[in-house]
Amino acid sequence: MNASTNIGGEACVVPARRGRAVRLNRRQSLKITNTHGHQVVDFWAFSAEDLSEFLSMEHLRATITSIFPKAGDDLVTNRRRPILHFSEDTSPGVHDTIMAACDDYRYGLLGCTEYHDNCTDNLHAAIRRLGLKLDETPSPFNLWMNIPVAEDGSTDWGEPVSKPGDHVVFRAEMDCIAVMSCCPQDILPINKGNPVEVHYEIIG
Amino acid sequence: MNASTNIGGEACVVPARRGRAVRLNRRQSLKITNTHGHQVVDFWAFSAEDLSEFLSMEHLRATITSIFPKAGDDLVTNRRRPILHFSEDTSPGVHDTIMAACDDYRYGLLGCTEYHDNCTDNLHAAIRRLGLKLDETPSPFNLWMNIPVAEDGSTDWGEPVSKPGDHVVFRAEMDCIAVMSCCPQDILPINKGNPVEVHYEIIG
Repeated sequence: MNASTNIGGEACVVPARRGRAVRLNRRQSLKITNTHGHQVVDFWAFSAEDLSEFLSMEHLRATITSIFPKAGDDLVTNRRRPILHFSEDTSPGVHDTIMAACDDYRYGLLGCTEYHDNCTDNLHAAIRRLGLKLDETPSPFNLWMNIPVAEDGSTDWGEPVSKPGDHVVFRAEMDCIAVMSCCPQDILPINKGNPVEVHYEIIG
Repeated sequence: MNASTNIGGEACVVPARRGRAVRLNRRQSLKITNTHGHQVVDFWAFSAEDLSEFLSMEHLRATITSIFPKAGDDLVTNRRRPILHFSEDTSPGVHDTIMAACDDYRYGLLGCTEYHDNCTDNLHAAIRRLGLKLDETPSPFNLWMNIPVAEDGSTDWGEPVSKPGDHVVFRAEMDCIAVMSCCPQDILPINKGNPVEVHYEIIG
């Protein structure tokens, strides 16, 4: 199955520990389902016309004046334009905008002596499968990642509070490329120690 | 006065609404003084060997497990290596890692119909003055910017709580280029509506 399409509205899979990129035309929607309920999905979106314009967590937080985007919000780029509308969220709405995507450096610091799958490499590999190349790694929108932020600013690595089958829907506000990575983090508890697959569907 | 040097230990100025880039050798320190007390300084640091390695707010937060870096912390890059040590802070320690640098798009959304000075352009102009070029705009470390984050994740645009003469010191952990921009924001209250100059000194 081609990574960039789905077939007849059937849900496609993002395999455990891997990433997928999909093209969305303006007004198409992307539904991402947390099939097993406890999987974090690192998520990015790029303008199809210019990959240097992308969904930016730091610009988004300034626009919505919150560190926690919610269904109903427009998600904006580093040029402060809506790229996606956050249309639906059947989960408790606990997602993260604070933490970088995991990378090989991160797993090295966590004690891994061999290569470890990671969301940063998944992003770049998924984009390469579309014949494209990214020059940078934007900070991801970490779907279902439970990072509580206390009043003193301290953070924690929580387990997801989502349920099996919870889904989010994003509607494209411009032609764009969306990237999903099933986070392979199996050392910290953010995926309950058990990275698995999720499913997605392009609607419209 | 050359933007990249100071003379005999005397403090140099970052003019109101402008930026400056300085080269720091490993073990040199940069002291930045909030001369008037109410000025936000957007701050960046880049490896002198490779500008694609830089102080990264999203990697820093994951490393220190906090959204508020404090004196004593190592500040890390997007390769999760210390680039600066946050040695001293005589201010109350209220700084921001959440918000993007202001840019011309931002001021357009705030109602400006003409070009407005902004920290993003100041960053790129300061780097160009060293004969270099950046391919991206990392999220800044916003010194003295008072962005309270409530437990529900909502943020506010506060006035600085620092006093005239408060300073921070960063010690270089690798050869690097540090960039300071006196934030020209005069619509939101983050600079008490009155953007002014700050001073800096390279020590060692």
